[in-house]
Parts: sequence; structure tokens; C-alpha cells
Amino acid sequence: MGSLKAETSISKGRCNGTGKNLSPDSLINLDHGDPTMYESFWREMGEKSTIVILGWQLMSYFSDVRNLCWFLEPELAKEIRKLHQLVGNAEINDRHIIVGNGSSQLFQAALYALSPPDASEPISVVSAVPYYSSYPPVTDYLRSELYRWAGDAYTFKKDAPYIELVTSPNNPDGFTREAVVNRSRGKMVHDLAYYWPQYTPITSAVDHDLMLFTVSKCTGHAGTRIGWALVKDREVAIKMTKFIELNTIGVSKDSQLRAAKILNTVCEGYEGGNTNGVMRFFEYGRRLMTERWERLREAVRKSTLFSLPEFQFEFCNFDREIRSAHPAFAWLKCEGDIEDLEMFLRSHKVLTRSGKHFGADPRYVRASMIDRDETFDLFVQRLSTIH
Amino acid sequence: MGSLKAETSISKGRCNGTGKNLSPDSLINLDHGDPTMYESFWREMGEKSTIVILGWQLMSYFSDVRNLCWFLEPELAKEIRKLHQLVGNAEINDRHIIVGNGSSQLFQAALYALSPPDASEPISVVSAVPYYSSYPPVTDYLRSELYRWAGDAYTFKKDAPYIELVTSPNNPDGFTREAVVNRSRGKMVHDLAYYWPQYTPITSAVDHDLMLFTVSKCTGHAGTRIGWALVKDREVAIKMTKFIELNTIGVSKDSQLRAAKILNTVCEGYEGGNTNGVMRFFEYGRRLMTERWERLREAVRKSTLFSLPEFQFEFCNFDREIRSAHPAFAWLKCEGDIEDLEMFLRSHKVLTRSGKHFGADPRYVRASMIDRDETFDLFVQRLSTIH
Repeated sequence: MGSLKAETSISKGRCNGTGKNLSPDSLINLDHGDPTMYESFWREMGEKSTIVILGWQLMSYFSDVRNLCWFLEPELAKEIRKLHQLVGNAEINDRHIIVGNGSSQLFQAALYALSPPDASEPISVVSAVPYYSSYPPVTDYLRSELYRWAGDAYTFKKDAPYIELVTSPNNPDGFTREAVVNRSRGKMVHDLAYYWPQYTPITSAVDHDLMLFTVSKCTGHAGTRIGWALVKDREVAIKMTKFIELNTIGVSKDSQLRAAKILNTVCEGYEGGNTNGVMRFFEYGRRLMTERWERLREAVRKSTLFSLPEFQFEFCNFDREIRSAHPAFAWLKCEGDIEDLEMFLRSHKVLTRSGKHFGADPRYVRASMIDRDETFDLFVQRLSTIH
Repeated sequence: MGSLKAETSISKGRCNGTGKNLSPDSLINLDHGDPTMYESFWREMGEKSTIVILGWQLMSYFSDVRNLCWFLEPELAKEIRKLHQLVGNAEINDRHIIVGNGSSQLFQAALYALSPPDASEPISVVSAVPYYSSYPPVTDYLRSELYRWAGDAYTFKKDAPYIELVTSPNNPDGFTREAVVNRSRGKMVHDLAYYWPQYTPITSAVDHDLMLFTVSKCTGHAGTRIGWALVKDREVAIKMTKFIELNTIGVSKDSQLRAAKILNTVCEGYEGGNTNGVMRFFEYGRRLMTERWERLREAVRKSTLFSLPEFQFEFCNFDREIRSAHPAFAWLKCEGDIEDLEMFLRSHKVLTRSGKHFGADPRYVRASMIDRDETFDLFVQRLSTIH
């Protein structure tokens, strides 16, 4: 079985890597994708996105007993539909919405729902290298007899049912992806956490059986722990709901109402022709990501030691123009003699995540592009001086 | 292995059993312990317990990177300690506080932390009959190779390591409990969700290795999904934290801040000698529970078909007087010829949970005592007319 070690390694470094009170020689933490970059936008929004909850509100376990997902707040469901309609990134008609404590929980709910309950051996769970580093430990930490991590989808040859995780745009490298195994007894989970206009051109409303999204990477509210799944099949939706009932008896209503308010604020920015000149969320995000990627590429050019992925230009249906991707992570490769890039960057006081956690070479690392300005500034500054 | 069926059965009945818009012949749902009884108290508290969260607050995944439990909001930790100090129900010195998405998640974190990681077979998980109906399905739904439900602690004879779940006061029957297996290779999880003054006399500050609590049953805020564990051993606390990191990447900060505010409001009621005559939370809860139990016992006497547990009088250190328990659930037994009490009560439009889900006889049912007034009124009214 896969390693159960702390590959999500959120505690790594135990440094304040979140951009507060940094000095020029501070350790900076780009290991995880803490989306604090967006705080500045929400500060500018002022009180528009404030929520107020009175002591007697939202006390019951139940949100809507008539809904298959009985713990989903109707207000959140409404805003999720509105947001997808606005962005055009996913088909929402005839889908069940399942809310989760982040999309990690929904990923586990999907494994539970898609595994045959009475199989003699666990179903294989695969994803193409480089895959999201949390998939192996999250699949295997409980050593479930229902499912088992089976590694790289490109090399999966077993003639048996399987679940393929398709992350698009991909974490860590930012490329658009499709399923690679393509055999008859496969089931797919599409992790679309980064399929938003600030990161990538929106080329179509995707229409897969089971799609995962999260507010963490959409609006930056990671601390709110809200994700959602769009699910075609009713039985799968019922089993996913059951998983979340057994795992956490539903999802915080306070968080759901907050997420609803945040999504509502995003959508409202696009209503009425935006005549008041206020910055809209995705434009803000895209502008910042574009600028950061330009600065990163410039630093990488100066250094000559590294390389970055190159992305195609594509027509974005949301922006109505041709553009390229600006992913939430930089998948940085060392072109020099250094064999362990994570260790090397650590000696320069930059914490990143080694390619080995993504099933790839340790000459690669993943570095967050969505931390606070102060952190990002130090990152490009250090990178440009490494030769 | 145990049944994986919907024994928590939250969706049972799909009726609005939460006391809103009931008519005299409405179906009433006392199957689950939805603590909506407390809404009336929090309404009276008015704006004291309101929280306001601005759009840019609480966005990061992190709460306190210096804390072992890096996703625990320091404000919540402070209020949890204050509350235990006020009530005197648990030892808090030299304990790690681990926050969870309700105590169900913490129960699973505890199983993960207490299971030997490399054992050749799953560790046995036991609890004395009647045990909380969620323990078997929550232990077994993922068919983990780490742990496995092994049933009634009274009949557990295997000479091997085990985990015993001790719920005190017990769900469903309300009695104070201690561990029953008492062998050398056992580990205990103490579920103390109901060890609060409104339900039972507080006879000591309990001092176990791993204790679980939840705001759901303490203050009634079930929809907020906040529980906490008090953990003596550092390694166990680290593994529980790891579980929650892998399971849901921490716990909603919005909910944590709300729970902190609610606990703070409870504690403030007891500060400064309470000279303003405002009702204090535990007095309110105890008064209501006492009144409800008196009415329930009266209805049961009238009916002659049922019986209820009888509780000893004990000195409560918190109330400074001798009193008996008034549990959150009525463990109702049918003394007549009816073999399936759940079915029988369902024919009278009262949904309860059959004794069989608690490892007990189907002549027993568990009925919630903490629903809204309207629901409870109908319950005792119907019960008193059944002969």
C-alpha cells in the first residue's frame, strides 16, 4: 500500500509562511496552496460580503429534508447554480449538488460511492503522473477494503474495475487533462478545483458524471471548508450523502451561509453591466495571476537554472478572448545539476513540495502562486538571484 | 462485519419533525436528537451571541501554526477551557484540545489514532449494550483494516488489543457508565457529549485519556458541527490531528468562531454574580428538562403500557444540590405484548429509534427529549392516550 506519511504536510516548516510580518531573510512557505492572495479583493469589497448570524439561527442538523442532500442549505445551492451559469464552466442541469467539508471530503465520498460494496478486493484508484500529492495518502490512510491507491494511470494495466481521478487544470502542473485509461469498467472523478477564469481559459461547460469544486480555490475562502460535487447519477449522489452523514453528520451551516454570501457577491459584480466601475472578482484574480506569472517567468529567465511549463493560447468563453493559463501553482523544474530541488530551495529558505510527492522527479517542485503579495515578492526576488 | 445500512437514519420519515407548523395529527420525528429545544433560550439572549464575519476574514487554512492542532482557533480553545472550568466536568490541565467537525469525526479520529498501524488484523471496537446506534456503522462503513466493530463489550472475550467506547451519561439510556472490559491491552474513548448539568448531576471533573464533547448537545448548536477532544497523550493528539487533516483539511473557522461566541455567552451568564436576573443557560436547560421528564413520566403512568429508566439522586457539584438525571433521550420500554415498539409508535405517527439499533431488544425505543416544545407537547399527549 501507499505511504501513510504526512504528504499533505500542512505543518511543514511550522513557519509563518502566510505573508504576515515577513523580513527579507524570512523562511517563506509555498508548500501548500493557501489562497491568501484574495484577501486584498475581499477587503476592497468592504461590507458587501459580511455575514451576521444570530445566536438562535441555524441550530438544527437539517437544512432541507425534502432534498436528497438533506444538509445542503438551499441558499448555497442557489448561488452555486448561479455561479456556474455566470462562468459557464460546468453543466448544472439535472445534477445533484452535494456539499462537503471541502472537496477533500467529497473526494472520499466519491470513492465510497463508486466502490462496489461487496467486491473481494479493493477497487484500484489511479491518476496520471504528476498527480495531486494528497490522493495517495487520502485514499489509503484508513486502509479501506473498498478502494486502494494504485498509482499512475498511464501505467495501469489491470483488467478490473478502477476509479480514475482526473484533475483539470491539473494540480501540480496546470495543464488541461482528460481521462487516460479509457477502459469499459472505469469510473471517473473530475476534480475541477482550478477550472475558474483566473487560472485558465474556460473553453466549455464540462459535462462529466461526477465533478468536484471548492470555494477555497475559487474565491479564496479556504478556512470556510466548503466544497461541492455535481453528480449525475442519483444512486451515487445518495451514497455520497450517506458518506458525509456518517463521516461528519453534514456540513457546517454557518460556513454554507458564508459561502453563499461570498458567491453571491461574486455574481452581483457581473449584474447590471457593472456601471459603477467596481473591480469584478475574476478580472481581479486574472489580472493578479497574469502579473505574477509574468514576474515569475522573468525571474526564471534571469536565473537560468529553472524552467516552467508553457501553456497554449485558447479562446476563453468567459473573457471572450484568446488567452493562456496562469495556474495556481508553479511546477518548477531544475535544469541544472541539482537532484533534489525541494532541498535546494529550502536552503534558500523557500519551502515548496517535491515532485516525488506527485509521482514525479525530485528535480521538480510545486510552489504556490496564490499566497499574499509579500510572500510572492520574496519568492521571485530569491529565485532571480539563484544561479 | 456490521451492517452498513442507514442506522443513523437521519432522513427517516422525511417529515418536518422539527416542530414547525405541526397540526394535532402530524407525524412527529423523535428519531434523532436534534437539539432545537434550545432555540428559545438563544432567542431570549438576543444580540449577545451574534457573530459578524467580514468577507476578508478567516480565509487561510491555518489558525495557529505553533499549535499541535494547527487548525484550532485560539479563541475557541480559550472558551472551551473556560467552560470546563465553570462546569467542573472535565480535567483540562495538560490536555491537548483537538477540534473536529462534530464529535463523530473526532470519534473516527480516535479510532485511527488508537489503532496499531501495522497490525495483521483490525483492532476490535466494543461498547456495552445498549450502545449508541451510530458506533457500528461509523466504525465499519469504510471497511478499514485498522479497526472493526466487535459488538457488546459485556460479551467481548478475545484475548487481544481492543478499543472500548464508554458513553457517559449513556446514549440511549442516560445512565452513568464506566468501562466494562478492563483488560490490560484496552484503550478507552470516553464520549461525554451529555455530561452537562442540564442532563445529569456533575459528580466530578473526569480525568480520562481521551474525552469527546460537542456543542451540539451542550448548547444546542448542532448545525455548527463543532466538537472537541481533550487528549492526554501527545502522540495520540498528533495522530488525531493528522486524521482531520486528511479527512477534511481542518475545521470551518466560521463555525469555530461562532462556537467560541456561544460558549462565551454561556460563561458570561455566570460572571459577576448574575445580578441582572437574566436566566443562565444551564439553569434554563435543567428547568426545561426537569419539567419535560415530569410530564413524560406522568404520561407513561397514565398509559400503563410503558416504562422508563429510574435515576439515582446524586450531589451535583455544579448546582450544589442533590438531584437526579434528566437525559436528552427517553429510553422507553413497552411492558405490554407489543414486540416492535418502533413500529407500534410509528402507527401512532411518532418516529423513534428501535432498541435493535442499540444492540438491545425491539421492545425498547429511544425518543428525543430535546426537540421544540410543539413536538414534545404532541409526544406526551399521544403517549398518554395509548393503552
